[in-house]
This record gives sequence, C-alpha cells and structure tokens, in this order.
Amino acid sequence: MPPMDRGLPYMDLLSADELERLHDYSMQILEEIGIEFRDDEAIALWKASGADVTEQRVRIDRHLLMDLVAKAPESITVHARNPAKTVTLGGRRTIFTPAYGSPNVLDLEGKRRNSTIADFVNFAKLAYQAPAMHMTGGVLCEPMDVAVPKRHLHMNYSLIKYSDKAFMGAVTSKERAEDTVSMAKIVFGDEFVHDNTVTVSIANCNSPLVWDSTMLDAVKVYAASNQAILFTPFVLAGASTPASTIGAVAQLNAEALAGVAFAQVVRPGAPAIYGQWLATVSMKTGAPMAGTPEIDHMNMLVGQLARRYKLPWRCSGMCTSSKLVDAQAGYEAARNMYGVLIAGANFVLSTTGYLEGALTQSYSKFMLDAEQMVMFYKLGQGLVKSELDESLDAIRQSEPGGHYLGTAHTLKNFEQAFFVPDLMDHDSFEQWSFAGARDADTRGRDAAAKALREYQAPPLDEAIDEALLEFMKRKELLIGDAVL
Amino acid sequence: MPPMDRGLPYMDLLSADELERLHDYSMQILEEIGIEFRDDEAIALWKASGADVTEQRVRIDRHLLMDLVAKAPESITVHARNPAKTVTLGGRRTIFTPAYGSPNVLDLEGKRRNSTIADFVNFAKLAYQAPAMHMTGGVLCEPMDVAVPKRHLHMNYSLIKYSDKAFMGAVTSKERAEDTVSMAKIVFGDEFVHDNTVTVSIANCNSPLVWDSTMLDAVKVYAASNQAILFTPFVLAGASTPASTIGAVAQLNAEALAGVAFAQVVRPGAPAIYGQWLATVSMKTGAPMAGTPEIDHMNMLVGQLARRYKLPWRCSGMCTSSKLVDAQAGYEAARNMYGVLIAGANFVLSTTGYLEGALTQSYSKFMLDAEQMVMFYKLGQGLVKSELDESLDAIRQSEPGGHYLGTAHTLKNFEQAFFVPDLMDHDSFEQWSFAGARDADTRGRDAAAKALREYQAPPLDEAIDEALLEFMKRKELLIGDAVL
Repeated sequence: MPPMDRGLPYMDLLSADELERLHDYSMQILEEIGIEFRDDEAIALWKASGADVTEQRVRIDRHLLMDLVAKAPESITVHARNPAKTVTLGGRRTIFTPAYGSPNVLDLEGKRRNSTIADFVNFAKLAYQAPAMHMTGGVLCEPMDVAVPKRHLHMNYSLIKYSDKAFMGAVTSKERAEDTVSMAKIVFGDEFVHDNTVTVSIANCNSPLVWDSTMLDAVKVYAASNQAILFTPFVLAGASTPASTIGAVAQLNAEALAGVAFAQVVRPGAPAIYGQWLATVSMKTGAPMAGTPEIDHMNMLVGQLARRYKLPWRCSGMCTSSKLVDAQAGYEAARNMYGVLIAGANFVLSTTGYLEGALTQSYSKFMLDAEQMVMFYKLGQGLVKSELDESLDAIRQSEPGGHYLGTAHTLKNFEQAFFVPDLMDHDSFEQWSFAGARDADTRGRDAAAKALREYQAPPLDEAIDEALLEFMKRKELLIGDAVL
Repeated sequence: MPPMDRGLPYMDLLSADELERLHDYSMQILEEIGIEFRDDEAIALWKASGADVTEQRVRIDRHLLMDLVAKAPESITVHARNPAKTVTLGGRRTIFTPAYGSPNVLDLEGKRRNSTIADFVNFAKLAYQAPAMHMTGGVLCEPMDVAVPKRHLHMNYSLIKYSDKAFMGAVTSKERAEDTVSMAKIVFGDEFVHDNTVTVSIANCNSPLVWDSTMLDAVKVYAASNQAILFTPFVLAGASTPASTIGAVAQLNAEALAGVAFAQVVRPGAPAIYGQWLATVSMKTGAPMAGTPEIDHMNMLVGQLARRYKLPWRCSGMCTSSKLVDAQAGYEAARNMYGVLIAGANFVLSTTGYLEGALTQSYSKFMLDAEQMVMFYKLGQGLVKSELDESLDAIRQSEPGGHYLGTAHTLKNFEQAFFVPDLMDHDSFEQWSFAGARDADTRGRDAAAKALREYQAPPLDEAIDEALLEFMKRKELLIGDAVL
C-alpha cells in the first residue's frame, strides 16, 4: 500500500485566533526564556545566524525562527532501495512505521526476555511483509547481544538486507550517524545520497527546552547530508511539561520548531519533520500513559500548528503501558492511534508491536497491530463516494424483506466495500471453541510464526551486500573488542 | 457526570451538495420502492395521513415525510426517579447507556453461561455506580431463568429498584410495553408520564425496509404515552443492506425516517431518536463485525444526516465480536466507540460489557468499558482552553533542563489536567509482576466483585416499592404458569 492519501477532514480544536495565540506563547518561550543547545558547534552556528546567545542559552526572535522554518520542505520523499517502495510524506500524505527502541521482546512463546539481533532480523522480516508499513523501521528492538559500539552496524545491515523499504538511521553518536550515511551511500551511491533523502532519524529533545550534544551531533551529520530528522520533544506531560494540555503543547512546539530551525542553519532546505512522542504521566506512579483523552487533544493541537507552519509532523501510534497483549493493550493502542489519525500526523512511528511504554516489543502485537493499521489506513482514506446509483438498483431488486447476500451487486462489491480482518475472530462461540478457543494474543503469535516461515528475502545486489559486509568488518576491526 | 456537552467538532465527510444527494436517494427509496408496515392499524394510520398505501407497502412523499419528521423534538429530556439524574440528549448533548439483550454472561469467574435475573440485578447495580453512565439500561442481559411472559416485569422492577437513573422499556409485545408504562406511572404518577418522557425503548426495523407488527405495537403504546423510541434499523451491511457504505446509509436513513415519521402520525411531537445498530458482515462467515473502518464512515454519514433533520441520533459503542475480554475486545470496542464519538451520536447504547456481537455480557468488560467511557466523555468535551498564562509562568520557573513534578502549578492542576484510569496498569513490569501480574480481564473481574460488595441501594419510597410488587404479583397471576 502506498502512503495514505487522506480523505478524512482534520479534527481541529482551535479557531484561527486561538491558534495564533498558542503560536504566540511558543514564540514568547523562545524569545524570552530561550532554549539550550548543549554543543559548542551548534552554539557557534546559532551565533552566526543572528540568534541571541548567552552561553548555551539561545533566544530566537520569531522572525528569524519563522524565516528558518520556512526553508524546511513541506513534503519529503524518502527513497527505498526498491524504487516501488519509495514514499512521500507531508501535506495530506501519511506513512506508518514500526515501534522503536525496546530492550525486551515478548517472544513467540509469549515469554518476556532481552531482545537479540535474531529478534531484530525477525522484526525486519515482519515489517517487510506488513502491507500498510511504509518503512522497515529503525531500532526495531535493541539487539542486546551485540556490543553497543557495533550495534548500529548490524541494525543498519539487517534493515537493508531483509527488507527493501526505506530505513531509519542511528543517532547515538556522530560516528554512528556517519556510518549510517556511509552504508546508505554503498546502497544508493554517493551522489544520490547527497541530493536525496534515503533515511529518517530521530532526534529527541530533552524536555524541557534542552537539545543535547549527542542528538545535535547526529542532527548535524544528517542535515548536512540532506537526510531527514524527526525533531521529537519527549513529552511526559506533567513531568517534562506543565500540567496543562495547551501549556504542554506551547512548550513542545517551541522545542520542535527550534530543532527544525537548527537543521536549516546547518543546511537550508534540510528535510525536517516536526513532532513529538507524547504521553501523559500518572500522578500515582510517575509512569507514562497512552490512550488518555488529553493525549488526543494535544495531538490535535500539534496537528493544527504543524499545518500552520506547513511542516510534515510525526507522532506515535499503537502505544500502550500494558505488559501483555491483553484488553488494555487493545484499548490503549486503538485509542491512541485513532487520535493520531484524526489529528492528521504525516509520519506515525510505533504502529506495531509496542508494549510497556516502548520497553517491550511483541511478536503477537506486531501482527495484530499491523492488521489494525490496514484498517486505520482505510479509515483515513475516507469514503468511496461513487456508487449510489448501483446501490439504489440493488435495493430496488431486493425489495422490502429481501436480502443482499449472493446478489450480483454484492458479489461484485463486497470485497472492496468492507474490509475483513483475518486476525479478529468473528466466528460463533461454538465455531471458535471447536477451532481451539484461541485468544487474540495466541492468534497473533501464530500469525508471526507463520509469516516468518513464509518470508522470502527481497533481492539485494551481491556486490552491494559484499560491500556492506566489508564496511562492517573494517569498522568492527577499528572498534575492537567492545564491551556489551 | 451529567450528559456530555460536546466540545469536539463533528467529523463530517460530505459536502452540503453530497449530503443533499444522499438525502435525495433515501427519498427516492421511500417514494418509489416504499417500505412495509406489517400491521393493520399502522396501515390505517398511514392512509389517514395521506401516504400512498398498497396493501402493506407504504410510499411516502418527501414533503409529507419531512413535515412529519419536523414534528419530532430536537432534544429529549428523559426523567429519572432521582431528578438529579434526569438527562437531556440532542443537539451537542450526548448520553451513554449499557449493552442490551445478551442471553449469556461471562461471569465473575470468567465462565460463560446463560444469564439469570441475579446477573441482571448485578448489572443494574454496576450501571448505577458507573460515573459516565446516564441511564441504567434496558435488557442488561436476558434473565433466562425467568419465563418470557413475566420477564419484562422483573427487568423493569430491577431497573427501578436498584438504580435511580432513567430506564428503558420492554418492546416484545403490546402488553409488555403497556406494563412498562403502567410501572412508570406507579413511580412518577399518571399525569407526569402522560406529559413527560421517563423511558426510552428500542424499535428495530427488519432491514431491508420492513417494520413488523411486534415493534409497531410497542411504538404505538410508547408514542401515544409520549415515551421515547429509538428507531433502529438493524444494519448488517452487505446482508440487510447493499454492499456499499453509502448505499447502506441511504437505506437505513429511509428506514429510520419512516419510523420517526410514524411516531408523529401516532402522536405529533412524540420523542423519537433516529439511528441504528450497525455492523459490517464478514464475507467468510456471514458474521457481524465491529471496529472496521467502514462502520466509522457510515456512522459519520448518519451523524451528518441526523443533524440535517435536527433529530437526536443513536448508535452502539463498545462493540466487539470477541468471545473473550482480550486484545480483540479492546481494539474493536475502542475503535467502534471512537468513530461513534467523532460522528456525534447523542444516545450511545452498548457502552459497557458487550462481547460476541451482543450475545454475551461480561462483568469484567463492563468495568473496563465504564472507565473507557469516562475517557471518551472527557475526550468529547474537548479542550480546556483557559490556562495558557499560568503554564507560561510554570515554564519560566522551571527553566530549560528542569522538571515540573512537585511544582505549585503541577500540584494545583494535575488532577484536572490529566485523567488517570484505575483499571489500566501503568506500573513497571517489576511492580506489576510483584503485584500479581494480573491482566486487564482479571482486573476488570476484581473491580466488578468489589463494586458489587460496596453497592449501596438508592432510596426508593416504600409505598412505590410495594405498589410495584403488587402490580407484578397481579400480572403474574393473570399470566399464570408460563413456560420458559
């Protein structure tokens, strides 16, 4: 399925005046309080661009900020090694990508354990096969059995090798970002990567109002290479932002815009995606929550702001705090994603497998979520409007008291008219019991095992494959015996 | 919580022209194909009102239809025996009610069995306690241990006795509808019931395009007594309607409007709620599905039509095909309800406990759903817009790199700013494991058991209680030894 072309209206909560007022508050934050860039090179770049800099504190005038933001592209094309899977996002176009960064998996037997590179490869294969998944993903799970200094090499290679969709890059250091760009150049060629976008990477803001040097190092590498960055305030609303929906959004808006603007300071026109990871915090435990009403309200505000700035924006989709693939996981993931969809996000991260506030990646939930995403895709596309006359004829033929099963109109239209999810069970209790009384979690695990058995690798040019392996070998020699 | 005052915009899919075109198709259905009223008295009433009648087929000119529909009130106040719990629905005001009619329960031990009057009483007690539940409900489950001819008496009594919220009436025969009105008169007084609405009852259309005599008998009783009716096409899209979202809506619109108009023929100004129970059908099994994207599209169309006609409208909320309180139940219920919410339904049935396409009522899911409905309520209310200045002050005080936990602004605002659901678990894996590793289903069952232990009956005037019991005794003597 190509990127989703939106047919649904946006759910906008603010009037034009109210939106300007919210924007104004974010401008006050950046002009008066300012934001910290904890990196000497970044500070030098901001000084040169005309911002008001005191030590690491950068105060950015709204005119300067808006001039810089205006240089960021409205839409971004991310090239895949299979050109048929190249995607464009922005405007009314949206893409879905997997969850990111969990150190644990809930495995094919439903057991929770540390994730490994074997799991990572498996999730790359599942992402490759998922129909409404537009990129293979990034840190599909943390391969805890591979030493950190070498980990990004194995992740990048697996993303490239086992899928032909576009992939996300490493951000945990300058060198790892550079390695990602180098590996992309092996796949796409140097010149192509200089002028085109082939990866998207995440830069998290340490809310409130701090961009740290690790993230800025990665941003500088990627922006200079024309690679896309998700400027992502990490919003624990009530902990890293004020305890107010609109106050939290005023702050994250300032943070994300400062990031987008910084990318333009590095390279005017650098592809930058505005947006956030967003949770409310439980006052009881301090833990992040998903699927709460205020998250949806905040996403709707962010969407409206992003459209005002003509920036593509991201959020996270099928999120949950649940430790299991249970009813909580279903409620929270569906609610959270529904809010993101109607708010109009262009890049939706975490659309599959997410459990425990991103600490665990589940094989079962990956499959269940992937199917739910096909339905969110169809929901977001909006209505098929063109078949009223045919329907009226069908009603005429059926007459009062008749039925429509088996009629010519039904046989012709059914499949496209109504989606039937495979992993949701619609059988009677008796049929379902006879077939083994499997719950959704079990069906998800069975589906994952089946998909992995049936997986067939997409072709990869042998010379490219060898060059990637050669690059990794050379790097690993340089890195030496790294500690886990 | 009073009826929800909507702050969210409506999700409207059609332009004004497209909406008129859809309306026109429904008018063509009623003018050219017509609709059957399988009841002599109804046919006589339609003839007298000027409709074109051939045997049981009634063809209704659009002017006549719209004149009748215009007599139905835009909003309806349903009185509860506790005046503080009287509710008004219509316009931007919405109420939530429980699931309806399941012959089975998934009990407090998670076992599926036939439901009993003891279960019915339990669900009345739970509905009484649920904060975002605006009526006690109707057939909370079918008490299979009470003979059908007497069943409605025991259901009505339990709804009145164990809760002081408004209740729904029996519709399975003329006599049972009359008994409901009689029992309401015992509670509210004859005169009050003649002029005010104290019950809401469901009349299902046998789609396509048939209103049968059982339903029409109940409609005549209730409309004549100024009691509200939900005119509910039972939409199995693809089976009882054409295999087309917009075609299905054209048909159900004709069916529902014909019902609303008929109530006005019986008594001009009779409170009538437009709307439907809506599922798409699995082509694999013929079974109804919930939480599919086309259901949401159809609900959005229905909402737009209802607003065009200035009628309050109903739909069903937390629906699922699942046999268990598992991830499927969570996904489907949340998606289905989210669609209903943004489509703007005024009366949402089946907001708690619904499993298996309404064949089973679950104690666990009742509790989980009830909490989800509090969140849907808050979502639907929309944004709290008034606290930007305070938030900016909080950001100023926190400064970059700070945090907001424990600040004065947070302590003051947290509880109202961010809802924390009790039955969703946000603990760490370790805390959750230590506390027993309970899944959502187990937590729901535990919560139901606790709520039933803690239940305290609302006061009921002793004379009214005795009169109700006396009425039932007299009726039961007349009915005699009924067969189950």
